Amino acid sequence: MKENIDEKYMRMAIELAKKGARAVNPNPMVGAVVVQAGKVIGTGYHKYFGGPHAEVYALDEASKNSKDLSNATIYVTLEPCSHYGKTPPCAEKIVKLGLKRCVIGSSDPNPKVAGKGVQILKNAGIGVAENVLKEECDKLNQVFFKYILTKLPYLFLKCAITLDGKIATKTGNSKWITNEAAREKVQFYRNKFMGIMVGINTVLADNPSLTARIENGVNPYRIIIDPHLKTEKIHNIIKENIDEKTIIVTSEKNKNSEKQLDFSENNKVKFVFLNGTKFSFKEILEKIGTLGIDSILLEGGQLLISQAFEEDVIDAGEIFIANKILGDTEGKSFIAGFDKKNMDESIILKNVKYNIYGENVGMEFLQKSYS
Amino acid sequence: MKENIDEKYMRMAIELAKKGARAVNPNPMVGAVVVQAGKVIGTGYHKYFGGPHAEVYALDEASKNSKDLSNATIYVTLEPCSHYGKTPPCAEKIVKLGLKRCVIGSSDPNPKVAGKGVQILKNAGIGVAENVLKEECDKLNQVFFKYILTKLPYLFLKCAITLDGKIATKTGNSKWITNEAAREKVQFYRNKFMGIMVGINTVLADNPSLTARIENGVNPYRIIIDPHLKTEKIHNIIKENIDEKTIIVTSEKNKNSEKQLDFSENNKVKFVFLNGTKFSFKEILEKIGTLGIDSILLEGGQLLISQAFEEDVIDAGEIFIANKILGDTEGKSFIAGFDKKNMDESIILKNVKYNIYGENVGMEFLQKSYS
Repeated sequence: MKENIDEKYMRMAIELAKKGARAVNPNPMVGAVVVQAGKVIGTGYHKYFGGPHAEVYALDEASKNSKDLSNATIYVTLEPCSHYGKTPPCAEKIVKLGLKRCVIGSSDPNPKVAGKGVQILKNAGIGVAENVLKEECDKLNQVFFKYILTKLPYLFLKCAITLDGKIATKTGNSKWITNEAAREKVQFYRNKFMGIMVGINTVLADNPSLTARIENGVNPYRIIIDPHLKTEKIHNIIKENIDEKTIIVTSEKNKNSEKQLDFSENNKVKFVFLNGTKFSFKEILEKIGTLGIDSILLEGGQLLISQAFEEDVIDAGEIFIANKILGDTEGKSFIAGFDKKNMDESIILKNVKYNIYGENVGMEFLQKSYS
Repeated sequence: MKENIDEKYMRMAIELAKKGARAVNPNPMVGAVVVQAGKVIGTGYHKYFGGPHAEVYALDEASKNSKDLSNATIYVTLEPCSHYGKTPPCAEKIVKLGLKRCVIGSSDPNPKVAGKGVQILKNAGIGVAENVLKEECDKLNQVFFKYILTKLPYLFLKCAITLDGKIATKTGNSKWITNEAAREKVQFYRNKFMGIMVGINTVLADNPSLTARIENGVNPYRIIIDPHLKTEKIHNIIKENIDEKTIIVTSEKNKNSEKQLDFSENNKVKFVFLNGTKFSFKEILEKIGTLGIDSILLEGGQLLISQAFEEDVIDAGEIFIANKILGDTEGKSFIAGFDKKNMDESIILKNVKYNIYGENVGMEFLQKSYS
């Protein structure tokens, strides 16, 4: 019974955390609820990047509603912080107000500080329950967790295919594969992740703008993998770089070339240089991670998607399937280059969930999880 | 309001009709409800092939419950028959009992008798309402309607593919693509349709038994398209032909060949002979139709499926998609051979509905409808 009550308030805290969604990025989403004598006397969530933590809102409200919190419990989706950062440590605030109990969902993913918040609470004699609805709390902050733990951006694959797995005809035509409802979901993803990545072939074939066409949407960083610097001034990612968020990943050998300097100076394009002309996905992600980009929506094309599966760097994704058949083996598959003799050597998409978009369907999957 | 009451009782009749499902084949599924003074006083459905019509059961029951049916209405999913067949005409029975009204869903699809049942009723002064929930009533009997109207069997495609549209690896391995839940649905289809069709390449690659592995299931006719008579005695469709339901469609040139005569005499295989060695789907369906087979489950492989789409002979189907990627363009696609330069030249699957089988999904579609 006690567990059920804990889960009930933790679920409330999770719902509060979700309100932070995009605004709190790259901070984690956190929710907190203070309960005394079976009544919720304070709630809060982390509202915006660098703003007060969820516990601060919840505890301040609780203090207004009750002079004595010595019988109160605080539910928080993430272990209270122990460090003096942008705000004073929340664990100490809980101690100072003398609460009886603290119920925690996720542990702090930062290995340097994990457990320290809990230790401060325990040292002060406060009862601590950890891992309550941990999986659901962890889910809130997979991007944050991965980035803290690995310094690598979270990689989410988005791909729209025909029923026979094609992303374009043999002549390169790809408009449109999926319906409007599915394409709207793509705009949601473009607003959800900090970066969006495509290969140079996609730029040459489709000349995409790669902007978030959503109301009050924030444009993602546009990351182009272009070893031989084939991007041209006429391409939308260069022409429309008003927000200065286009990043080209290219070979060291193009550094200081006429085109590179021109793009850099006149079009405000950012560059990432790597050795050679065949980049591993791992090194690309490492470099992008150092730029402070915590998440990437991988949109194609065949080469990058295939390499990402080969290197097993995809964290999650959604593949949109249209009720449409090309029937032409010369059409471009979304993935190629593997050598499989048996069906059981297939790549398996894990933790699959289906989203129905009218006559299209999305196969959403989760390959990795972080906690 | 009156319309709503009619729909309510028609829906009841539809549910009754469904109870006939497979047993009534190749007769249509029909349900009937007799209502008087707001009370259901008789129900019935067509229970088995050649058995009494739904109206007979419903009217007999109503007669027991009420001596005077002059204020009663009969709801029937299909126009009451007007001909002396296995049973006396239902339209005359309704007249004889002196009902007030007859509400009908589907019209009789047989062009020779369509409207004749209605005419008998109207001539006797009985009120007739037609086309009530017609679409749903028509849906009950698509196989029956098509076969009556065209003499061609209904063609339903079943296909299991990877996310990249493959039915086998380059070495021919295809076990298993989909999960158990999806494969169980296939068994349901094998029991639903009278025939099951594959090409010779599927026999050579997989050596399938093509039986209905379902409790109390009826084996379908096994139809093999084998122009050059490559089937061998070791194949399960020959070896296991105990029910004598294997049919080989082959070239005239194999008639009276040693192998053909051996299969025919010693293995009780039935043969359909066609001219040449490249058969059109249309001529195959015509021949199979003359054997009294009203419906076919097309299971593959690539060649037959591609030809069926090319000739646009598929009536409906379900394509099962696994959460599995082969990633090898040399793997075998479920469809090939088309020449498409633009995405909008794609084949569109219509009236799509998704069925979720755990981590697999089925795209069910309906290309044609008959009424």
